[in-house]
Amino acid sequence: MRDISAKILVALDEVLGTPDTSIPLHEPEITEQDKILVAKCLNSGWVSTVGDYVSQFEKLIEQFTGAKHAIAVVNGTAALHIALLLAGVRKGDEVLIPSLTFVATTNAVSYCGAIPHFVDSEMNSLAIDPDKLNSYLENIAEETKGGFRNKKTGRIIRAVIPVHILGQPAEINSLLAISKRYNLKLIEDAAESLGTFVEGKHTGTFGIVGTLSFNGNKIITTGGGGAILVNDSNLEELARHLTTTARIKSGVEFTHDQMGFNYRLPNLNAALGCSQILALEGHLHRKRTLAESYIKAMSAIDGIKMISERSGVKANYWLNGFILDSANLEERNNIIETTNAVGYQTRPAWMPMHFLPMYKDCPRMDLWGAEKIYKSLICLPSSSFLAHLSD
Amino acid sequence: MRDISAKILVALDEVLGTPDTSIPLHEPEITEQDKILVAKCLNSGWVSTVGDYVSQFEKLIEQFTGAKHAIAVVNGTAALHIALLLAGVRKGDEVLIPSLTFVATTNAVSYCGAIPHFVDSEMNSLAIDPDKLNSYLENIAEETKGGFRNKKTGRIIRAVIPVHILGQPAEINSLLAISKRYNLKLIEDAAESLGTFVEGKHTGTFGIVGTLSFNGNKIITTGGGGAILVNDSNLEELARHLTTTARIKSGVEFTHDQMGFNYRLPNLNAALGCSQILALEGHLHRKRTLAESYIKAMSAIDGIKMISERSGVKANYWLNGFILDSANLEERNNIIETTNAVGYQTRPAWMPMHFLPMYKDCPRMDLWGAEKIYKSLICLPSSSFLAHLSD
Repeated sequence: MRDISAKILVALDEVLGTPDTSIPLHEPEITEQDKILVAKCLNSGWVSTVGDYVSQFEKLIEQFTGAKHAIAVVNGTAALHIALLLAGVRKGDEVLIPSLTFVATTNAVSYCGAIPHFVDSEMNSLAIDPDKLNSYLENIAEETKGGFRNKKTGRIIRAVIPVHILGQPAEINSLLAISKRYNLKLIEDAAESLGTFVEGKHTGTFGIVGTLSFNGNKIITTGGGGAILVNDSNLEELARHLTTTARIKSGVEFTHDQMGFNYRLPNLNAALGCSQILALEGHLHRKRTLAESYIKAMSAIDGIKMISERSGVKANYWLNGFILDSANLEERNNIIETTNAVGYQTRPAWMPMHFLPMYKDCPRMDLWGAEKIYKSLICLPSSSFLAHLSD
Repeated sequence: MRDISAKILVALDEVLGTPDTSIPLHEPEITEQDKILVAKCLNSGWVSTVGDYVSQFEKLIEQFTGAKHAIAVVNGTAALHIALLLAGVRKGDEVLIPSLTFVATTNAVSYCGAIPHFVDSEMNSLAIDPDKLNSYLENIAEETKGGFRNKKTGRIIRAVIPVHILGQPAEINSLLAISKRYNLKLIEDAAESLGTFVEGKHTGTFGIVGTLSFNGNKIITTGGGGAILVNDSNLEELARHLTTTARIKSGVEFTHDQMGFNYRLPNLNAALGCSQILALEGHLHRKRTLAESYIKAMSAIDGIKMISERSGVKANYWLNGFILDSANLEERNNIIETTNAVGYQTRPAWMPMHFLPMYKDCPRMDLWGAEKIYKSLICLPSSSFLAHLSD
């Protein structure tokens, strides 16, 4: 145990140098161009949810991801909430999600009155295990006129949400095939994977709807923000409608035709997004350089395995991390505490959702993989400007 | 009819001059100080939901309103949603709200799984009619151990939300007395009334919780933003907890102890808020000047009555408006169309909530007053910089 910690510290020093005080896990990078665009937005007086930067930002997201339509919203959680509604998830439906995810994925399901149904993750992609999911559905799902039903609970299983973890993509093609077999709407939580492609196609564009996040800890930031990605024009229209209080112009006044939300991104934040997304290619390049340095420095350490991109994949390497061979909370915590004490901010994976009090009674399969990743994953400082330290 | 339109146009010309193109209903005012603070925020790198400007902005709101605690959130809708949860509103409860309000008040009740129960408004304050509410509750409410129950629906009536309309305050002291009589939590929707006081006390600080909005059309703006006002420290803590995904630090990791929300205001928007709120006194002064000009210019027109502050009240005059003696949609629309055609942006009140398809079957009292205001209220251009035009 002590031995691994010591070796990791040596490798971190090699990649990042000795910290003056503390090297954060991830910091945003604000440029002169960011300041110029935000100042322009303020000069225009259009700082709120109507403004040119919102549509410009959406166009830039569309160009980068290849999604036909991007709808900018206040944050990734709001994007997930609306994505579920777009996919037709309703009260009483079950939605398959990995137990190993950020709590927002799970909360968004709850916001719809639907029930999170936890599925397991696998060690390579850190995301939903397709083989295990397929066998599980073979056992528990039965076809009905209204969709596949969970035999145990009697509820319709409406959708599945693969989450692309740390910027490494889920086994999206296998999951897409399963979703078709079981008539599940596939929603991609691509909050962490802006810039990650599978066989040349951007994550978030495989299913019926995908979501992005531009929170301060993400590869680019709008302060707070997110986006919904869709290809279908009707879904685009519905997304715009639902995120602007379902408002309809009617003569000299407005009316609302359903319960809507106040979820659109302010123009001020979109202005920051416009310049941030132009810097994305640079971030991706430097993050790859940093990942390569980590992989080189850590490869000789027995007992750990760096997370790295699989064949056919171009990962954004948003966060670097490694898996301990021995899934052991004490060892994991010891390494995190030791590295933090020296000034390298490291952190574990999220606590699996089936451990949280409000979700512990949700339906679930065996979650061995999620628990193993939880006990063995450690994330490393990954701000893209750290790349130069390893030159 | 034609006659009134013509006289109104003369009065608008007197107050605002002849429009070059169009004079908007309300525009934000962005100053050099705004640009300086936002640039400082960008320089700091802290643009997201953690940062000094958020707490500074909250302190400035507390100082201005006299609320013990202000919690900054992404918008007024989010503030209302959390306010209802803080007040203990739960699934299946009824919440008394005016039918004459913005749809966000009503949606927020629905987000909690509670049922909006519409009450009537009166012509003086444009807000809930206290006498009518009191008589109504005498008839329909019966006391039970768990609170007062709606005899017709069997559901507990948990809370009441007075909305301060256009910056004129509701009859808050009467409503507070009724809320005590019927054991209702009183939540104030003060989205439009930042700067409005009743007997020296700021709107939003009378009940258990109040909410503000800093949307682009409000008296000050953060692009998008809002705040929750409470005096109770436990409620403050709960508000902070619920708006930050109900996250709890546990050793080297985080956990979550209930379903939470991603509702905190980004630091970037809070930086704008810090400078905007320092300009509030100036806005209030100019809005009062503008209101006085309107009242002077319009007072001689037969058939209309300007909205003006009642005794004991200091209104923010966020939006100026008048009421037609004859509540008549055709006449209202004609005046709005005529003034808009000349370039004076005017608008009606919101369509009452009981007219909307998703809320038409909600419980409600007779809503004669709300419908009369709906048919007779017209709002006038009210940006505070318009004050100089009437000098």
